[in-house]
Amino acid sequence: MPQPLQTAVAGATGYAGFELARLLSHHPRLAKPLLFTREASAAGELADFYPQISGNGKLRVYPFHWQTLSDRGVELLFLATPHETSRTWAPEALNRGLRVIDLSGAWRLKEEAQRAVYGLPELRGGQIAKSKLIANPGCYATSIIVALAPLLAADVIDRDSGIVCDSKSGVSGAGKQPTETTHFVEVADNLSAYGVFTHRHLGEILEQLQLKDDELTFTPHLLPIPRGILSTIYVRLRQPATSADIESIYASAYSEKPWVRLFGTRLPQIRYSLHTNFCDVGFNLSADGKRMVIVSCLDNLMKGAAGQAVQNMNLMFGWEEREGLS
Amino acid sequence: MPQPLQTAVAGATGYAGFELARLLSHHPRLAKPLLFTREASAAGELADFYPQISGNGKLRVYPFHWQTLSDRGVELLFLATPHETSRTWAPEALNRGLRVIDLSGAWRLKEEAQRAVYGLPELRGGQIAKSKLIANPGCYATSIIVALAPLLAADVIDRDSGIVCDSKSGVSGAGKQPTETTHFVEVADNLSAYGVFTHRHLGEILEQLQLKDDELTFTPHLLPIPRGILSTIYVRLRQPATSADIESIYASAYSEKPWVRLFGTRLPQIRYSLHTNFCDVGFNLSADGKRMVIVSCLDNLMKGAAGQAVQNMNLMFGWEEREGLS
Amino acid sequence: MPQPLQTAVAGATGYAGFELARLLSHHPRLAKPLLFTREASAAGELADFYPQISGNGKLRVYPFHWQTLSDRGVELLFLATPHETSRTWAPEALNRGLRVIDLSGAWRLKEEAQRAVYGLPELRGGQIAKSKLIANPGCYATSIIVALAPLLAADVIDRDSGIVCDSKSGVSGAGKQPTETTHFVEVADNLSAYGVFTHRHLGEILEQLQLKDDELTFTPHLLPIPRGILSTIYVRLRQPATSADIESIYASAYSEKPWVRLFGTRLPQIRYSLHTNFCDVGFNLSADGKRMVIVSCLDNLMKGAAGQAVQNMNLMFGWEEREGLS
Amino acid sequence: MPQPLQTAVAGATGYAGFELARLLSHHPRLAKPLLFTREASAAGELADFYPQISGNGKLRVYPFHWQTLSDRGVELLFLATPHETSRTWAPEALNRGLRVIDLSGAWRLKEEAQRAVYGLPELRGGQIAKSKLIANPGCYATSIIVALAPLLAADVIDRDSGIVCDSKSGVSGAGKQPTETTHFVEVADNLSAYGVFTHRHLGEILEQLQLKDDELTFTPHLLPIPRGILSTIYVRLRQPATSADIESIYASAYSEKPWVRLFGTRLPQIRYSLHTNFCDVGFNLSADGKRMVIVSCLDNLMKGAAGQAVQNMNLMFGWEEREGLS
Repeated sequence: MPQPLQTAVAGATGYAGFELARLLSHHPRLAKPLLFTREASAAGELADFYPQISGNGKLRVYPFHWQTLSDRGVELLFLATPHETSRTWAPEALNRGLRVIDLSGAWRLKEEAQRAVYGLPELRGGQIAKSKLIANPGCYATSIIVALAPLLAADVIDRDSGIVCDSKSGVSGAGKQPTETTHFVEVADNLSAYGVFTHRHLGEILEQLQLKDDELTFTPHLLPIPRGILSTIYVRLRQPATSADIESIYASAYSEKPWVRLFGTRLPQIRYSLHTNFCDVGFNLSADGKRMVIVSCLDNLMKGAAGQAVQNMNLMFGWEEREGLS
Repeated sequence: MPQPLQTAVAGATGYAGFELARLLSHHPRLAKPLLFTREASAAGELADFYPQISGNGKLRVYPFHWQTLSDRGVELLFLATPHETSRTWAPEALNRGLRVIDLSGAWRLKEEAQRAVYGLPELRGGQIAKSKLIANPGCYATSIIVALAPLLAADVIDRDSGIVCDSKSGVSGAGKQPTETTHFVEVADNLSAYGVFTHRHLGEILEQLQLKDDELTFTPHLLPIPRGILSTIYVRLRQPATSADIESIYASAYSEKPWVRLFGTRLPQIRYSLHTNFCDVGFNLSADGKRMVIVSCLDNLMKGAAGQAVQNMNLMFGWEEREGLS
Repeated sequence: MPQPLQTAVAGATGYAGFELARLLSHHPRLAKPLLFTREASAAGELADFYPQISGNGKLRVYPFHWQTLSDRGVELLFLATPHETSRTWAPEALNRGLRVIDLSGAWRLKEEAQRAVYGLPELRGGQIAKSKLIANPGCYATSIIVALAPLLAADVIDRDSGIVCDSKSGVSGAGKQPTETTHFVEVADNLSAYGVFTHRHLGEILEQLQLKDDELTFTPHLLPIPRGILSTIYVRLRQPATSADIESIYASAYSEKPWVRLFGTRLPQIRYSLHTNFCDVGFNLSADGKRMVIVSCLDNLMKGAAGQAVQNMNLMFGWEEREGLS
Repeated sequence: MPQPLQTAVAGATGYAGFELARLLSHHPRLAKPLLFTREASAAGELADFYPQISGNGKLRVYPFHWQTLSDRGVELLFLATPHETSRTWAPEALNRGLRVIDLSGAWRLKEEAQRAVYGLPELRGGQIAKSKLIANPGCYATSIIVALAPLLAADVIDRDSGIVCDSKSGVSGAGKQPTETTHFVEVADNLSAYGVFTHRHLGEILEQLQLKDDELTFTPHLLPIPRGILSTIYVRLRQPATSADIESIYASAYSEKPWVRLFGTRLPQIRYSLHTNFCDVGFNLSADGKRMVIVSCLDNLMKGAAGQAVQNMNLMFGWEEREGLS
């Protein structure tokens, strides 16, 4: 057995950071991860922030210092920090010889990120293995790109009539900071659309799928549930297709991919993917085979954030993609 | 003050029937409504089924008998019954000289319903006033038709590229009968799509909007909330438009209509319309003015069922559209 | 018809203040209420803060100024403000000749409130009619005092073995300010107890029921619902009783009270009382008639706050207790 | 490594049975478990009933036949079946030489169960190891007995003034069968008490704690969440105590027990224990040290059912108590 890898998480007390801390602390290839808050004041036991993990051994959270990272021999740094923080900390970490997986949106777009690889393992497995800096994809973006990429590659979609992506997310996607938007009374018994034509995940979706601005419309919604995403995706096909045609396209792309589950013409539901790293994909065709509705589900804190970050780490270090995620 | 009208509700113990009973019992033009179950066995006080109304005077529920209707001088019968029941009871009621408002789907499609008027007051106000049999629209259908009808009438939508209607409904829309689908544990923390390309509201939507089969795609979803519908509707425009253009089209259609609230470019949310008879409509345009996302919300038991039935009654009898609904 | 009364609400944009604004604006005895925020900056239409009321006529919210109150001839001021604000504004308002109904906890305890009457209409109807300053009771306190007062007055409870009040409240009781406690992700799928032995409603409960400290234990809990309170109350009886005995005690106290619904040995549930001003009370006795469990429910924003404030106003001005609340 | 044990689950498609199937299929000491429905008709893949586990290898569900059990060499049978079924199947299984862990209430009371051991590992670890038939405790009962047993053993509770147990449970505790009680619309936005003085877990609580009928009052409530139990327990102490006194009593009882987490004077919340096998216990004392409120939480499908069954199996076969549960 080789020496276990020393990892660190900056931002370990946020929702995605906590999920990541939990995954890393059980990963068979790793030393106990070093956990950091962004602020000096908030240090303590992780179980003080998240009592659900008490009784499972100690995980301390420290104020972030570069010196601590070098003292403790950290080789891989996960940034579960706001975009602004990631934009300065990622280059600094690279300069210090660390590898970086950034969960923020700071490095996902090409103009910002010559040195970064967009870390969607099902699409960019090869590049990820060689990368020093991985931009972990957005949660909405993952659910949409996984569903559409094989169909676009197979050129079956009529792009001219436009693709519609109607996505719905649980509240943890909005982060741990209390705001009016995340107040229980505003969210419960409700549904709301937001960020229409302007959501920041739109850019990475278009770029990764090589679509023009007006070829895809994306509307996110806030669901009254703690976690999970469901995207309902509408496309028109260039030629009438059968379910077998579509199943075959998806199978070619994903039958060897452990973290995509193909539901065929059954439709996945949010709760099937909760607390797992799966992205689930199903579809229905219209009777004439010319229109298709695709439903794609995932857990926004797992395949949409922390789980995918671990999957990226596995690829980066040449480990089996499932390790630490089952 | 004229003689108060005697009404009756068949199916008063279901969710829509109960909401209707509550509305009718407070309506200023009406005698106390006669309430019926479909079965002989289930008679009793309405407050035995719905304790929330106890303390507000007695409302008895009787087993359904035609004789009771004539004995009590009923002039208007509301059918909050399953399709099959409505299909036989509505003609029988007409034969007996009653007027009928049917909340089921039995008489909404033209082939089934030469004698019925589709009771969407904002579109068919004139016909409703003269009708003996009104087919009260489906809840999903109402949210979609109200949002689209003025735009289609103004011919601004590019039908060829297709309209997408992504609708989400609370659980009361699935009825009071306990099923696996309505079990709390299956619905909570979840979202699911169903009836893709096949939902029975699709026919009435296409027919009322005079659209061809492949011009509109409709997907309903089950939300983990008790009531409320939000439809997110995607269209492409024939010519670039400004927000002012669209606002003007909606204003022409609805500024005199008391039960449509226009939100302009703000977007309505489900909870704004709960326990009201409003259909709320807002929209956003893409930067180039060529794509539009419309959000339409209503309470599926009010504007989507019982409230709209009362609105139809008001029109039928020449009363102000707001009566008994504020 | 006499001149309509001019009222004002300070704090109209909080949850209880909004509910109050809505009730007052439909009350048949009142002029349109004057609405105030606490801060100068937040003025605007009430519908900007609560879009659900748009389409029902304009209700403007102004920054609070004493001058505005006198200019507009306000006679009755409702304070839906924090304790600290109420503690200075109530005396100022009395000095200016206004009558005051305060929804905060500032004036509920005797040591603080020589001039105030504790505004529980079912107990202090007579005093309320003559009062200038009413301390509107706490939501938890109302549910508990209504349930216990008749039994203590009839001296059937064995105080020595102690009374237990286990209360559960929806999140709106915690106010509109976003905090970690009210974050959707922290509340959903959860239940938590808080303020054990220390909650600030405990003092008013003990004082109003004339109980000693160790005779009653009160534990509030935070429920994952937006509104509503259920208190489960446990007492031991001095003598074995029958259900008829207990029903008779409650009936003597409340049969003439319009806003208490007696459920006898059926048990009320939270949803029965939502959006009403009722306090619902039911109970079960042990087989030997020596122990009793009482369940008491109400809507924390209605009978637990705004509705009760309107009920108090009705009594203060000699109007029927139901006015503006049905 | 010894031969892996062959287990079987009868009733594997119910909520507790499914949780058990999932745990057993990952347990390091076991062969793949044999899964049975109660009915012949319902056979298929477990993933057809619970799509969330698809992609994790096949788990087939068979119609129940005794012959299949002997053919496959089953040594331990879990009964996740209704009481009536367990009452006939458990003796039959014992006659056939199997060991049995029964999750129903059939064998929990002494009069019914001379041959059974009440399977609460923290109390009866020694007997469990030697037993052939284990009655797995009720979910409410576990939360209450774990909290009270050490205090009663230390004789610090004043039993004469009575113990109050106010428990709240998620809906999965009511089973998978759709009923009016479990309909989403009836449960959401609600809380209700039920089974006051009559719930079937009361008997096992009294018997295990050796309390007389009138020494403990237990009221269960239905929470609008899918899973989890919180019990709030009220006791009066024979002598004033300090928090250190109480912590010491709990520590003596549980510091070596891996599945009880002691929270001291912090209070556990339901979500801390979800998807774990922990029973979490915290408490608060009144200022005079004479009254105590204890809060006890667990996941009703884990420590309240399937997890505890696995813990019992571990003790039965001499394995470490944590195996297959972390």
